[in-house]
Formats: sequence, structure tokens, C-alpha cells
Amino acid sequence: MTAIDRIKSVLGPKGWSEDPAEVSPLTSDWRGRYQGETPLLVKPASTEEVSKLVAICHEVGIAITPQGGNTGLVGGGTPQGEILLTTRRMNQVRDIDIGNDSLTVEAGCVLETIQHTAAEASRLFPLSLGSQGTATIGGLISTNAGGVHVLRYGMMRDLVLGLEAVLPDGRIWNGLRGLRKDNTGYDLKQMLIGAEGTLGVITAATLKLFPKPGEISVAFTAIDSPAAAVALLGHMKTATGGALSALELVPRNALELVVQHIPGTRDPFAEPHPWYALLEVGAARPGEGREMMEAALGEAFEAGLIRDAVIAESEQQARDFWNLREPIAEAEKAHGRAAKHDVSIPVSKMPAFMAEATEAAERMLPGVMIIAFGHVGDGNVHFNVARTEPGAGLDFAKSTEPVTAMIYDKVAKYGGSISAEHGIGIMKRTELAEKRPLDVELMKAIKTALDPRGIMNPRMIFGS
Amino acid sequence: MTAIDRIKSVLGPKGWSEDPAEVSPLTSDWRGRYQGETPLLVKPASTEEVSKLVAICHEVGIAITPQGGNTGLVGGGTPQGEILLTTRRMNQVRDIDIGNDSLTVEAGCVLETIQHTAAEASRLFPLSLGSQGTATIGGLISTNAGGVHVLRYGMMRDLVLGLEAVLPDGRIWNGLRGLRKDNTGYDLKQMLIGAEGTLGVITAATLKLFPKPGEISVAFTAIDSPAAAVALLGHMKTATGGALSALELVPRNALELVVQHIPGTRDPFAEPHPWYALLEVGAARPGEGREMMEAALGEAFEAGLIRDAVIAESEQQARDFWNLREPIAEAEKAHGRAAKHDVSIPVSKMPAFMAEATEAAERMLPGVMIIAFGHVGDGNVHFNVARTEPGAGLDFAKSTEPVTAMIYDKVAKYGGSISAEHGIGIMKRTELAEKRPLDVELMKAIKTALDPRGIMNPRMIFGS
Repeated sequence: MTAIDRIKSVLGPKGWSEDPAEVSPLTSDWRGRYQGETPLLVKPASTEEVSKLVAICHEVGIAITPQGGNTGLVGGGTPQGEILLTTRRMNQVRDIDIGNDSLTVEAGCVLETIQHTAAEASRLFPLSLGSQGTATIGGLISTNAGGVHVLRYGMMRDLVLGLEAVLPDGRIWNGLRGLRKDNTGYDLKQMLIGAEGTLGVITAATLKLFPKPGEISVAFTAIDSPAAAVALLGHMKTATGGALSALELVPRNALELVVQHIPGTRDPFAEPHPWYALLEVGAARPGEGREMMEAALGEAFEAGLIRDAVIAESEQQARDFWNLREPIAEAEKAHGRAAKHDVSIPVSKMPAFMAEATEAAERMLPGVMIIAFGHVGDGNVHFNVARTEPGAGLDFAKSTEPVTAMIYDKVAKYGGSISAEHGIGIMKRTELAEKRPLDVELMKAIKTALDPRGIMNPRMIFGS
Repeated sequence: MTAIDRIKSVLGPKGWSEDPAEVSPLTSDWRGRYQGETPLLVKPASTEEVSKLVAICHEVGIAITPQGGNTGLVGGGTPQGEILLTTRRMNQVRDIDIGNDSLTVEAGCVLETIQHTAAEASRLFPLSLGSQGTATIGGLISTNAGGVHVLRYGMMRDLVLGLEAVLPDGRIWNGLRGLRKDNTGYDLKQMLIGAEGTLGVITAATLKLFPKPGEISVAFTAIDSPAAAVALLGHMKTATGGALSALELVPRNALELVVQHIPGTRDPFAEPHPWYALLEVGAARPGEGREMMEAALGEAFEAGLIRDAVIAESEQQARDFWNLREPIAEAEKAHGRAAKHDVSIPVSKMPAFMAEATEAAERMLPGVMIIAFGHVGDGNVHFNVARTEPGAGLDFAKSTEPVTAMIYDKVAKYGGSISAEHGIGIMKRTELAEKRPLDVELMKAIKTALDPRGIMNPRMIFGS
């Protein structure tokens, strides 16, 4: 019996597929950048099944690519001959412990399901991002996802209390503890978080829950510059006592693209402004949110930090404001192709980085504009290069390569990171090896120690 | 030239000592439980000096025990023949970046210095614990220290943005980035945090700063039971919108010992109560703290969660309330010896654990009482066994061994941890190996990968 037959037999008829109609949507990524192939799609329904199939792969040396909702942006879930392991059938909520503010779910649980489960228990699971209707918690943990609420609640890493995983030799590691404090040697779960499936298959997680704010207030403000956004951030953090849950930067060109391409959107101001910042605060009690926002923005206006502001008067208006920020990527796509850079910089140095990199890009490649937006509160900007005119020639990706190199050099100059929240995958592994050779050497040492046969998603991060 | 002579020559005359008057205070721990010895005390003044001396040790296979303020509780900094490396001369603040809310300091910086440096810049560095006048940031990171503000601000791990370390082969690893988001492969600093010096010598760190609250309000409340403390925690977290920065449990017997042994303390209530909870909230603006505390405690009283409460009317009174909690260990010591257990349990299961373990301990060892206090908001309780009568026979440590085993078994039963914040060191390595063999196997694999010659603090955590 071949190894593939043994795996099929262990999983049963529902546990695998070779049907192209089922398999092929999963062997390319949703943006259509990576096209892959797999000898077999496996669909285990339990941790035990994952354990058994990984043990067979370990024994015979077959490589595995784990996949969650397949919403990643760096090719991390696209197999190139590896067995493709989808966690979608492992999607149960195992336990909710209100008194401990924790929730234990299987890896294939979709983020939106987790948000709803928490909300039904009057709790908040704060991770929030565009793909939340599809992304699974296993993938979100494996890529240490970010999103729009990192400012207050942290990255995915900060929201994980415990993990269960199948190790590269097939053994089950049970680290599913619901503890806030646990100083018992190395914190092993930290290696699995953000490892992009290279150290094992995450099968379940215990997550941190938070009190649901009594009132959320959202404002859309007009500002002068990224420097003004940084100053506004400092003011809002102090003035709201940690209640600031988002500060998102929107440039004028992005607002114009959104209003042009996304139905139902409109510029909230009568006059154009060069930059905008969307703000969100979460207050403990109903009635306190708007009040807190109004007081803080009043001070910001007097201090010259903002040009103008509108505070949402209803949940609908709050959604409308978010709808000027969230579909920027979609509006960008409707406009034409863009070379995208998900970078982070120390917050204080972000204005200098943006000014310098924008000037250099526009000089290097006439006819392009920079669309720079995102989580400025976390020092994370999506720094994208697009043509000023709609559409794009076929050589666009190639012609932006030197600009990308320039951007990554400036990121290094300002002590930043070439991947703030999307990860490395296969997309950025060359750059990572160039920029941080010692880091890559240490990562490889850990990889070899925990996965000596190199079967877990072997091409990712530092794969050859 | 011997290796020791080479090290002396690299460090210069100020960089080492063999003088017993200088060395011997550092070869035992401050509680006097561990007595050690060292061939040489090294006192490097810079990362480069650490690098050079570790390279020599790596070359010839000499082991090193790094030490910060020597305030640890599990023997992690006590050498037994290793070279003792104190970071005390490396105590500079390298940089404060207000706009990025970050601070870069050398490993030997004392916590109190860091707190003051942050305060002078109108920022808060929230880590706070009893030994803050002596403990250094390198040691606090190496043990992932906790303290009284974990509830709001997290453990030491959550406060580290970047690290610089000397690897076991002497190379300098520069991970001193001031970034909130950086998804570039494995997060290597996470392995150094809490590694108790077994993976390298931390030489500097970039730390997260927070806005300084506009007003801190402290209250001392009387409650029925640990279950009431857990219910009060849930209420306060929701009612204060995340502004709750401490919830510390104090049992009646601890309060009595404090009032008896600590000068200047008094019971704030006219009547005795079985349990107490100290609460602290930090509000954004002056005037809001007391108001928030009063409203939240009013609701708690109406809901039957508290028996009585006093809110501090001045900073002095706030310090007085903290002075009923902080010197519990000191008052305990004045009373006699105690067998101490720093355990964590999911918050929801803490009352059941405490009731069961207390009943069993008192049954097993007549004449003892449980003094159970601490960070109940984090699920962390210092669960100590003391004689009801002052003083203790010489056989106390031995006679409490079975009670300790029972406590650790009950911790395991409730999904808890045998070391919430103190670490493993040499004190708990046997228990760790028993309770979590697979974890220890994985830790050893990482240790061997990063320190193949086994020279970094080799006896700790899982040493033989």
C-alpha cells in the first residue's frame, strides 16, 4: 500500500479529495498570484486524524502544506507538490469559559463565527480584518494576523492563551491552557504563532476575550499630513486613557478612488483635504463614547492637529466611515494594478519614511502615485505604488521592482520591517534572507530541531 | 594563557573580580536558599565585551550564569561552578523615543530607573513589583516577570518590542526594533524572553511605553470569598472599560499578619471580614478615577459582590492600602517559615482549586494554615502553607513536601501552572519534567539547536 493509500484509508472517504472541482480552488491564492498543485487534498475532521496522517508523512518523508481559509497574501498556503491539508472540517467551538474570559476553538473556525460566539456571551473577540468571513483561526495564528484593532488589543499573538498542535512527527502537543501567566520554561506556543505552518499543524486554540465596550464612537477627521496623524495618535492615546481602538490613515487619492469605485460612499467633507484619519474609541458605558470622542477631538482641533472632523451619529454612519477605509484595496484594484508593500516603521519615523519613499518613487517611475494608508497607530502602512491613470501595462510588475527595492532599503534605514502583518511566505523570502541573514540562520536552526525531516510547509519563510 | 586569563585580559581590570567580599553576595540568592560558587565574576561594560567573553567560553566550553539584580526566587542566577556574569555595569538608557512610545535600555538598568525615566517623559512603564529598586530589566525579561499590573498591561513579554542579545557562540544578535508589528518569520525574541539565560545573554531591550493615567484611584474592599473576587473582577473589567489595573486578593490571616508585623499599618474596617480585594483603576483625566471607582463599586455593592469598601481619598491613603498587600511576604517571614507556591489557574476555576487545596492541606498537616493571596485578576495566587503558631521547627520544609505535591496535582487537575511568574530555575525543574515531559523534550531540542555546547546557564529549567 502506498503512503497516499494509507493516508486515504486513515481518513476515510470524506477525509480526502482528488476531484479537481474541489481541489483546484485551493491550489491557487485568492488574488491569483500563486498557482500550485497537490497530489492529494486531505480534510481531517479531528486532531487525531491530523496526527495519524502527519505520522505517515513523517515516516515516508512527504511534505505537507496546511491551509486555513486560503486568504493569505504571500503564497503561504499554496502547495507546490505538497499534500494540501485543509482544516475546514475542524470548525467546532469546543468551550467558552465566561469566568475566565476565554474561548477554545478548533483551527478551522472562521473568525466571524468566533466574533459572534463571543458577542453572544457579551464578550469581545477583537481581531477584525477584511477577510473575517473566510479566514480561519488556525491560519490567523499561523500568520500572526493584525487588522484594525491592534492599537488597543494587540496582534493575534497577544490574543492566544493556549494552543494545541500536531508536531512534525505526528505527536499531539497539548498546550491548550487558559492561563494569563505561565512561566514554565520556553513559551513554545510563541514559535508556532507566525510560523506559517513550518513547525507543525495548529489544531485548536484557547483565545482571550474582552468585555464588550458599552459604546463605540467613530469619527472621520481631515488632517494636514502623516506627521499630523502621528501627533493626533499621541493626543488621542492620552486623552482616551487607552480606549482608542483604531487610528487609520487615508490619503486623498485613496478616498477619491473609494468614492469613485465603491457604491454608496461619499466624501463626508464639503472641501477636499490632503489626508484623513479614521478614529474609533470604545467606552465602558453607553453615552460615554461620543462624549469622550468629542472632548478629545475638541482639544485636537484647538491644538491644530486636525482641520475638520465628523463624529458618527448612528451605527449606520459609523459603518459608512469605515466603508471609506476598508474597501481601499478593492478600489485600488478597480483602478488598476498596484505594487503593494506592507511595511512597518517606528511610529515617530513614519512621516520621514513616507515623505522620502514617496518622493523617490515618483522620481524613479514617472506616472505613478503612492497610495499610503492603514494602521498608522501601529506604525504599519500599506505603501502601494499605482499608476496615476487607470489600467496598467503588462510590464507594471517588472517596472516597479526597483521601486520595491528602494522602499525596502528605506524601511531598513528607518529600522522598520518589510512585512508588518502579512508574513513572508514565498513572496518575501529572498528579501528576508538578504536583510536579516543571522535571523534566518537562527530560524533554520529551530526549524531543523523541531522538523528534522523538513516536511512542514518546507518552502516558506526561508525555504530554498 | 588559560581561558580565564584570556577573559580577564579582554575585560580589563575593572571587568572582573575574584574578591570574596564582592563575589560572595552574588553566589547566593537573597532569600538564602541557594548557595553557589564561581571561578570568576565577570562585569562586562558593553555588549562587545559580553560578545568577546562568551566567544572565549564557547571556544573552550566554559559555562556561564548570567545575573541581573539577583532578586530571583528559583535559584536561576546562582552559579555552581559557572562563570558568573553580572550585567550591573551595563546600565545606560540608550534612547527614548516619545513619538514611538518606546525606550531602549541596557540589560543592567534597574526597573525603578526605567519607571522614572518614563515618568519624566510623561509616560508609564507599567511593570511594577516588590524588588523594583534592585531587579534589572535583563533579569526581568529573562524570567518574564509579572507583578501587580499584569491585568491591564500584561507580563514583561508583552512590554518588549525588541531585544539585543549575545548568542551562545558569542555573536551579537540585533533585534532591537521599536516595532508594534513585524511578521518576518519566527519571533526570535520570544524564545529569549523567559529563557532564564539558557539561550544567550540579553544585553539591551526596547520597551513599550504607555500614556501616564491622569488619575489613579485605589480602593480596599471587604468580600465574602475568592468566588466573590472572581465575580467582582468580571464586573470591574466591564464597568471600567479596561481601566482596571490591579485586583489583588488578601485573606484575613494575611491582613492580620501585616497589621501585626508591619509598622504603620491598620485594618481599614471596624469589623473583621473573611477576604479582601484591593482594586486600582487608572483614568485618562484627573477627576475621572475616583468617580469611575465609586460608580463601579456602588453597582458591586448593590449586586452583593462586596461587603464593604473604602476608596482612597489621597495618594497617601492609596499607598496605605497598597501597604496592606505588598508586605505580605515580609509579614509571613516575620511569622515563621512558609512553603510557597506561585501557581496559576484559569480564573473561573480558582475558587474551586483554592477550597479543595486548602481543605486537603489542613487535613494532611494539622496546625498549618493557608495564606493565599495575590494577582487573582490574572488567575495567579501565591498559595503558601504556614504554621498557625509563630516560628517553625527545622523539619517544616520536609513535612510540607507531600502538601506541595498535592497542590501541584490539584493545579494540574484544574489546568493550571506550577509557576505563574517566578520561573523554573533549579527549584521546579523536577516537577516540570514530571508534569510536562513533551514540553521539556521540545525545549531541549531548541536549547541544543541554539546552544549546542550547552554553555548558557546549563542547569536551569531542564538541566540535569
